[in-house]
Amino acid sequence: MEELIIKGRKAREASWFLAMASTADKNKVLEHVAEDLVRKSGNILTANHNDMVNAEKAGLKGAIMDRLLLTEDRVKSMAGGLTQIAALEDPVGEVLAMKKRPNGLVIGQKRVPMGVIGIIYESRPNVTADVFGLCLKTGNAAILRGGKEAYASNRAITDIIQKVLAEEGFPAECLQLVENTSRDSAVALMQLDEYLDLLIPRGGAGLIRTVVENSHVPVIETGVGNCHIYVDESADLDQAVAITINAKTQRPGVCNAAESLLVHEKIAADFLPMVGAELIRHKVEIRGDKAVCQLIGEAKPATVEDWGTEFLDLIISAAVVPSMDGAISHILQYGSGHSEAIITENYTRAQDFLNRVDAAAVYVNASTRFTDGFEFGFGAEIGISTQKLHARGPMGLRELTSTKYIIYGNGQVRE
Amino acid sequence: MEELIIKGRKAREASWFLAMASTADKNKVLEHVAEDLVRKSGNILTANHNDMVNAEKAGLKGAIMDRLLLTEDRVKSMAGGLTQIAALEDPVGEVLAMKKRPNGLVIGQKRVPMGVIGIIYESRPNVTADVFGLCLKTGNAAILRGGKEAYASNRAITDIIQKVLAEEGFPAECLQLVENTSRDSAVALMQLDEYLDLLIPRGGAGLIRTVVENSHVPVIETGVGNCHIYVDESADLDQAVAITINAKTQRPGVCNAAESLLVHEKIAADFLPMVGAELIRHKVEIRGDKAVCQLIGEAKPATVEDWGTEFLDLIISAAVVPSMDGAISHILQYGSGHSEAIITENYTRAQDFLNRVDAAAVYVNASTRFTDGFEFGFGAEIGISTQKLHARGPMGLRELTSTKYIIYGNGQVRE
Repeated sequence: MEELIIKGRKAREASWFLAMASTADKNKVLEHVAEDLVRKSGNILTANHNDMVNAEKAGLKGAIMDRLLLTEDRVKSMAGGLTQIAALEDPVGEVLAMKKRPNGLVIGQKRVPMGVIGIIYESRPNVTADVFGLCLKTGNAAILRGGKEAYASNRAITDIIQKVLAEEGFPAECLQLVENTSRDSAVALMQLDEYLDLLIPRGGAGLIRTVVENSHVPVIETGVGNCHIYVDESADLDQAVAITINAKTQRPGVCNAAESLLVHEKIAADFLPMVGAELIRHKVEIRGDKAVCQLIGEAKPATVEDWGTEFLDLIISAAVVPSMDGAISHILQYGSGHSEAIITENYTRAQDFLNRVDAAAVYVNASTRFTDGFEFGFGAEIGISTQKLHARGPMGLRELTSTKYIIYGNGQVRE
Repeated sequence: MEELIIKGRKAREASWFLAMASTADKNKVLEHVAEDLVRKSGNILTANHNDMVNAEKAGLKGAIMDRLLLTEDRVKSMAGGLTQIAALEDPVGEVLAMKKRPNGLVIGQKRVPMGVIGIIYESRPNVTADVFGLCLKTGNAAILRGGKEAYASNRAITDIIQKVLAEEGFPAECLQLVENTSRDSAVALMQLDEYLDLLIPRGGAGLIRTVVENSHVPVIETGVGNCHIYVDESADLDQAVAITINAKTQRPGVCNAAESLLVHEKIAADFLPMVGAELIRHKVEIRGDKAVCQLIGEAKPATVEDWGTEFLDLIISAAVVPSMDGAISHILQYGSGHSEAIITENYTRAQDFLNRVDAAAVYVNASTRFTDGFEFGFGAEIGISTQKLHARGPMGLRELTSTKYIIYGNGQVRE
């Protein structure tokens, strides 16, 4: 697709500029954009209003409309995000290790930008400013392909950013928005491996699957979280109730919310009525195995599909297990490798669970809801990786960089 | 494909065992395999003889026959590689950083195996043992899909390894060889993302391209090296000649050999006749631009394709550039991001070149031939990555691992 090849080439050129830009200059751009987003919020809100009207006409409803909506406060929050990114340390340029080899070569590994990053996202226009901020700070050019329903909002935000880039002496092509929002442009972006170093899909499971199956560009898979809370026989039961309720109900629509509860059989008769009453008070539907249904009258029988489902809703699956081994087998079989927690007072169990469970984040005695770049102290987040290559778990600025080996010689040749 | 789904499931189970195996047990397997490969080398050489006879019947010739051939010495060298890997430090289990958050959560990032690694390779049967050693040491199960022409050799090596695995109490499925060597099995492996965490193609540009375009599994792209030597106006010309000759001729068939020479115009008249005479003495064909052809009588005119070609042979392209900027532009345009070198005595030029050239390895005053896991001090190498995601440059044991966050809490819930 002609549009994308041209944008790819321009992004590659912009990335060469960005790789050499100083931290001070990049921060100046971020702060200037933050100001202009607020100052020109009228443009953004007018464009967003058009998107909302068209989306309503097209029959979109509910959560998707809320994700599409921008308000004065949401624009301020976008701007605030950029100011925060400006305040973070620039990871580019750090030399990770520098060693002298026996032949006198001095070899170091230097942190450098990825180059050009593509993002395919759905309805949330604030992603436009967030991704720009993270990419600019790390010296990466970005090509954004947002959803059709958010095009006017994304365009208005991009126009403001590109104007600032030009005013600050940066190539406007540090950020480019794909104009064609058809399915074809998403596919073309996935095939743009001549110019793209990395592609990140941000959206639902369907979008992520399509990108994984079709991309020629290296992908980081984000998102799906079928997270478990395993309550061991040795657990502090009050703590276990508090953590289960928090992990399930504090924000049920996100990937680090718990979807499944596993309870050791020795404490099932004590614990399940306790947690059941609290879950029901929080309007959570319980889908349990036979033992759970016997101990919690309101529980419905779980189907096999329930064990593998990310509900993203006030629903939890629950099972009684004969041992921690049983819990770990269940998690290995049904988990999505996102976040898993054990509640236990037993030292050996805690260490074993941490060692044996294969997930991006494994917890002892804490809510899975903490799997998040801000909670982990990164100050920013571009997504939560559920793959093992390059980055696993919350991704901050560092995960948007690569490295290169730099080698100082004095005439060495290989024998 | 049924065979691969079964192998995938078994590999996944083996990977759970391997993730918990101790370093001592893994080393014991490696040393036992090293012994048995030598002790049973007769089996391997007989199988290899069959492969060689069939390959000859099929009309294969030259370099491919040499890559396919095993000898007593080559088997000993395979075994020696495993002994060396046993002696290296086990990267699994290291905790990279452990920090206490303000809410009391203690968060660390622990190095863990990838899980299951797939390798698609061509004619060299020694890859079977090499990959097994690297994967076992790092706690990864491996599924190998070798070339049709090397099947009997690969099978014989795999049989010996699987027998040792079983004898040492490890699942034999820590290493599996795909029996179907049709194109279909390669495609099926690329689509085995339910069970594979990483796929590494080892072979020619065609194989790598096919994998990049078709894999649903995360890929590390290895190999293509169009490496440049830029001789700056301030270079020590004798050093520049020695490095150019070494980088071009010491082993021309490998990816870190130089393919192109760029010379600053101010020293072209002095340097090109010097280096030209030496290149010709080493039987190197020179394909030059107009200026080069004027200064080296034996040079042939270069075509546009020559600038972008990895010759892997005693051929070098050569151009005169007006400045270091000109050299860097040329490298940005035609380089493959593998290894690039500047020869200079000027401090600022050296630093600028290191900063601005975007490649896996950038050298000052040394031969590009050093881009190699052993030369970099890793003690082992699974390939040289030319992509930016996960690993860039020579990949050793560490690059075959992932990380997971481990979090110690005492009842924390998110507000």
